Amino acid sequence: MPDTATPDSTGLPGAAAYERTDRTVPSRSRERASYDHETVHSILDTAYLCHLGFVRDGAPVVLPTLFARVGDRLYVHGSTGSRPLRTTGAADAGLAVCLTVTHVDGLVLARSAFHHSINYRSVVVHGIARTVTDPEERRIALDAIVDQVVPGRSTDSRPADAKELAATAVIRLDLDEVSAKSRTGGPNDDPEDLSLPYWAGVVPLAHGYAAPVPSGDLDPSVQVPDYLTAL
Amino acid sequence: MPDTATPDSTGLPGAAAYERTDRTVPSRSRERASYDHETVHSILDTAYLCHLGFVRDGAPVVLPTLFARVGDRLYVHGSTGSRPLRTTGAADAGLAVCLTVTHVDGLVLARSAFHHSINYRSVVVHGIARTVTDPEERRIALDAIVDQVVPGRSTDSRPADAKELAATAVIRLDLDEVSAKSRTGGPNDDPEDLSLPYWAGVVPLAHGYAAPVPSGDLDPSVQVPDYLTAL
Repeated sequence: MPDTATPDSTGLPGAAAYERTDRTVPSRSRERASYDHETVHSILDTAYLCHLGFVRDGAPVVLPTLFARVGDRLYVHGSTGSRPLRTTGAADAGLAVCLTVTHVDGLVLARSAFHHSINYRSVVVHGIARTVTDPEERRIALDAIVDQVVPGRSTDSRPADAKELAATAVIRLDLDEVSAKSRTGGPNDDPEDLSLPYWAGVVPLAHGYAAPVPSGDLDPSVQVPDYLTAL
Repeated sequence: MPDTATPDSTGLPGAAAYERTDRTVPSRSRERASYDHETVHSILDTAYLCHLGFVRDGAPVVLPTLFARVGDRLYVHGSTGSRPLRTTGAADAGLAVCLTVTHVDGLVLARSAFHHSINYRSVVVHGIARTVTDPEERRIALDAIVDQVVPGRSTDSRPADAKELAATAVIRLDLDEVSAKSRTGGPNDDPEDLSLPYWAGVVPLAHGYAAPVPSGDLDPSVQVPDYLTAL
């Protein structure tokens, strides 16, 4: 049940927040959940890979795929021949999906095996995905998916032509029923375990980029663009 | 349809492989799929986070969670109070799940927006998850989940006591209906795009660990263990 009397753990009172629903309020560790726009957007905007879940023949399917956020809409694209997208038509009722994004920030080592954990930030979005048919919205979505991976790239590549656009399906999922969840900090050992002779703490994960590797057939006069150096 | 005449793209002829089913043969990019044990296991064994999908009230739910592989079994644990696990009973028919693991290896920048991609390795497992009740199997699974995150850690921490074990649910998913999928290499630009003045190539991702950060309350005489230095 939504508990509207409790402010979001990470949100300022009065900050814009997504409405809580039965399925966005976790059954445990509720203090790790938040609903404010800023937290949700920051987790989404620093990712480009999501795991998209849908139901096929009564069974769940979870596939990794690229996504982008544009305001309060998420976009996912794929081949018009791929199975999840074949089942999503503009004229139909849409496809119930769950789109999840997770960052792992650190490994949490406690003295007790039980209190081992990871530090993470995740967003879970529930909703109905629908095929986008408006040409302008499709163009915006496809540019956004390229820019979500490498900001600035969409204006430094050849735009899709008519044939490529026809082969590409774009689906939209509105940010409406959505929650963020995160864990930070060190291990939560029981007081009686603190003197045990086991190392305890956090191993932070380091995520980065190695030097860009040009294609073998790249014209040597083409320099590495600034938006790649900025990564 | 299973196509047993075609060898796995990455498997040796005759190597042990998982049987193909309708839902493990992708509808497109079949050349990126493989079924041999070695490929599937290597992708699973270098991960500890999965995205677990299940169906609740007819809608998909995808949650990030830790997992471990022990032979041909995957284990996931959680609080006995968490929703996915509450719906999985030893006495019932189990819970249909899809467990997906994804590594992102690089960003693939093509001259054309259309051919942008990522290099990745993923495994998708379909099956019925069942609660583990055998005490010895539960112990093996919980140790394995700790060791999947930090190899060697389970023997250097306090094992779960009776109360902790009672609060922990362990579910098992057999590796039976499973496939791997991967993309490697540079962009696949169309020949007529090769002379365009856009940088093309791959930006490899770097995944690593920063220096371990000890808990503030750690006895200074406890050294960083070798299995952490080895990370």
